[in-house]
Amino acid sequence: MARELEFFFDYGSPFSYLADAQLKGLAERTGARVIYRPMLLGGVFKETGNSSPISIEAKRKYMTADLARWAKHYGVPALQNPHFPINTIRLMRGAIAAQRSDVFTAYHRAVFDAFWREGLNLGDAAVVRAVLERAGLDAERLAAASEEHAVKDALRVATETAVARGAFGAPTFFVGDEMFWGNDRLLFVEQALSARS
Amino acid sequence: MARELEFFFDYGSPFSYLADAQLKGLAERTGARVIYRPMLLGGVFKETGNSSPISIEAKRKYMTADLARWAKHYGVPALQNPHFPINTIRLMRGAIAAQRSDVFTAYHRAVFDAFWREGLNLGDAAVVRAVLERAGLDAERLAAASEEHAVKDALRVATETAVARGAFGAPTFFVGDEMFWGNDRLLFVEQALSARS
Repeated sequence: MARELEFFFDYGSPFSYLADAQLKGLAERTGARVIYRPMLLGGVFKETGNSSPISIEAKRKYMTADLARWAKHYGVPALQNPHFPINTIRLMRGAIAAQRSDVFTAYHRAVFDAFWREGLNLGDAAVVRAVLERAGLDAERLAAASEEHAVKDALRVATETAVARGAFGAPTFFVGDEMFWGNDRLLFVEQALSARS
Repeated sequence: MARELEFFFDYGSPFSYLADAQLKGLAERTGARVIYRPMLLGGVFKETGNSSPISIEAKRKYMTADLARWAKHYGVPALQNPHFPINTIRLMRGAIAAQRSDVFTAYHRAVFDAFWREGLNLGDAAVVRAVLERAGLDAERLAAASEEHAVKDALRVATETAVARGAFGAPTFFVGDEMFWGNDRLLFVEQALSARS
């Protein structure tokens, strides 16, 4: 039976972006299959009483330095988005819609890179449309699908499920029932996956 | 000039305890001198608006699993204290008093191990006294010194200094002006120390 790694993320989370860039290598080393679980981080915060690190001024300042260190450590470009924080509900519904029409891989790459490598304002529907079209996706169809009740419900259920299983932030990983929070815990994620092989 | 690593800690912080156990090896590898800076974590939270991870129920649950993983990773005994959280103001004043009477090393070891390896109730002055006496320290003299204005002021100043320099939690490390938060950033601390050698 293939081992599975569940990756709960939000496009607005820079640490989710950093983690995302590590998953290909991790999957190759462990043989695990990554299951992408879009969730709404704002909903997770609301449900758990947790809050964004940027809500504390000292944490916000530190996060900038910390993200730069991680980017250097991983050998990826420095993350920046002058529009951060951005309400991501439409982007996350779009991820669900993309999964349902088998274009998730292209959608995921386009949105995540536009958010954190290009620093675009993905709170603006016109910008999102341009980003998706550039990636060869049917932006209009995805936008329409994102408004379907089934898609909205699926994002709500995914978010509630994450919280019910213990999540309070992003990225959150599950290997079976074992939960891991943060790109800085990928070491333990890999150990858990390797122990099951 | 010897490189210096400033270690701001509170005995009530289990992640400070985990970090503390790594400092000897790190100092040997980098040649850095560790400067122990007792601070009052409760004061840091109050000043910054930050709060303990245990104030969010989901974080508290996760912290238990996370601490167990780190203990296993470092090869140290699992941390536990049924009395946690404990008001640490007297313990931290005691650390300052111990530094001023050149018995810090013994005090630090005795208090940290009693807190997290033995899980004793160090909120109880009689327990603290027994722990210090067992370690061969003059508990009565340290208790008296902890009540001196100069010692109280020194702890207050250390805490305010930590906050002024950017701290919002524990452990917090400084290499020059570069700040690092958490035992999980010792990797970056070591890189910073090595880059300066």
